[in-house]
Amino acid sequence: MNRTQLIQTIRQKRSYLCVGLDTDPQLLPVSFARTAEGVLQFNKAIIDATRSTCVAYKINTAFYESLGAHGWTVMEKTVGYIGDEHFIIADAKRGDIGNTSYQYATAFFSQMNVDAITVSPYMGEDSIKPFLTFPDKWTIVLGLTSNSGAGDFELLNCDGAPLYEHVLRKVSSWGNPSNLMFVVGATQADSFTRIRSICPDHFFLVPGVGAQGGSLGEISQKAMNKDVGFLVNASRAILYASSEADFAEAAAKVAEKYQAEMSTYL
Amino acid sequence: MNRTQLIQTIRQKRSYLCVGLDTDPQLLPVSFARTAEGVLQFNKAIIDATRSTCVAYKINTAFYESLGAHGWTVMEKTVGYIGDEHFIIADAKRGDIGNTSYQYATAFFSQMNVDAITVSPYMGEDSIKPFLTFPDKWTIVLGLTSNSGAGDFELLNCDGAPLYEHVLRKVSSWGNPSNLMFVVGATQADSFTRIRSICPDHFFLVPGVGAQGGSLGEISQKAMNKDVGFLVNASRAILYASSEADFAEAAAKVAEKYQAEMSTYL
Repeated sequence: MNRTQLIQTIRQKRSYLCVGLDTDPQLLPVSFARTAEGVLQFNKAIIDATRSTCVAYKINTAFYESLGAHGWTVMEKTVGYIGDEHFIIADAKRGDIGNTSYQYATAFFSQMNVDAITVSPYMGEDSIKPFLTFPDKWTIVLGLTSNSGAGDFELLNCDGAPLYEHVLRKVSSWGNPSNLMFVVGATQADSFTRIRSICPDHFFLVPGVGAQGGSLGEISQKAMNKDVGFLVNASRAILYASSEADFAEAAAKVAEKYQAEMSTYL
Repeated sequence: MNRTQLIQTIRQKRSYLCVGLDTDPQLLPVSFARTAEGVLQFNKAIIDATRSTCVAYKINTAFYESLGAHGWTVMEKTVGYIGDEHFIIADAKRGDIGNTSYQYATAFFSQMNVDAITVSPYMGEDSIKPFLTFPDKWTIVLGLTSNSGAGDFELLNCDGAPLYEHVLRKVSSWGNPSNLMFVVGATQADSFTRIRSICPDHFFLVPGVGAQGGSLGEISQKAMNKDVGFLVNASRAILYASSEADFAEAAAKVAEKYQAEMSTYL
């Protein structure tokens, strides 16, 4: 899905919601087997319940890798079940020397056929550029993350600016707003206005609303640009809205609530 | 494999060689199918050829993920084939918020049963600590890497010291020399003496000898401590020593050459 299509989808659905499929077998409703197959069936039910209100799905690779090779198959089947009307993100936080990053790009862009992958910037240019060579695919680089550990290195003062600002500026010069996004946590609301001024045109992937405590209203006010310019992810708040038989209806309701609030900001 | 066992293995074999299984199906000798099964058969031949001269194997997850779910199965089977007399590293460069890092740790330490995993430090403490909670398992955090992109962020001057020094100091305080190592590239020889003074007791995983041009002699002189304290990885120089039918003998010879040189430094 390219930038024009993504913006069009957001405008049509009046939603910039991304549903995070961080599916933990231990947290499935009792009617599901706590296996790879149970995860797949649960994902299908969540996707059916949220398809109309979200524009993107984010697959957190860790939860699938913990199930071994079967988990990898479930990721592939989940991507296939979502189809091509949603923007699909592999939240994989990869990044390595050039020839290895190229293999990761092949794994997710060619083999699994997702639209985007999250990448860590620590190793610099040759760890990120191979991802940017795939046409109509997106690289989502960690900027300022939502977790408490963001303070350890991302906020270090480097030559007068926090590390994450160097990341935003330097990585921006390697790609463009049609193949590059940044992760900016919803818990970092105080920094959002400044981040938007550094990257006026890029999309942001914004986790941290819901279980992590970020405010959708505040983020929407500070992050929006003329093309909307961001996706807000919610995972646990939707997946585990209910642990009973009504889990899918409960997930749909939470997603609808997010979409309804988002439509007021658009 | 715990620290005592690792040091004992190094002393017995007079080797601190790690063989990197970055197996690219496109580079297999012609007698192998360019498939997941071909990769597994090639890995087995390389392992048999190098078992006696190396103390560790490093599996680069990217090359297996690019083969999809079958690739993940090949990783698992490769780990099983290596057995428990070698130190096994998943070179995965993972790291995410706490509950997600815990899932990655489960994937590699419990499900795949490797000894160690490489982790990126960008997201800070809660992205690394979950890996450190698994007994007798190791977390290998990126310090100063071997690639050209290391200069982009790792060497940024942050409050008077390069970023990677902050990483070494801060991450050291979260673990100990029995569950924590650092990646330090062999191409960074100028910095090795200083890095060893910051982390006198930690093991280093040192890639970048061979295809990337680092000097084994210089690194060995600067990195060695009383417990040896480092593993030197070679991947392409061993895997692709010959592309003909004699590939395994050629791989064995290169590994023996490394081991022979290492034994002179011990």
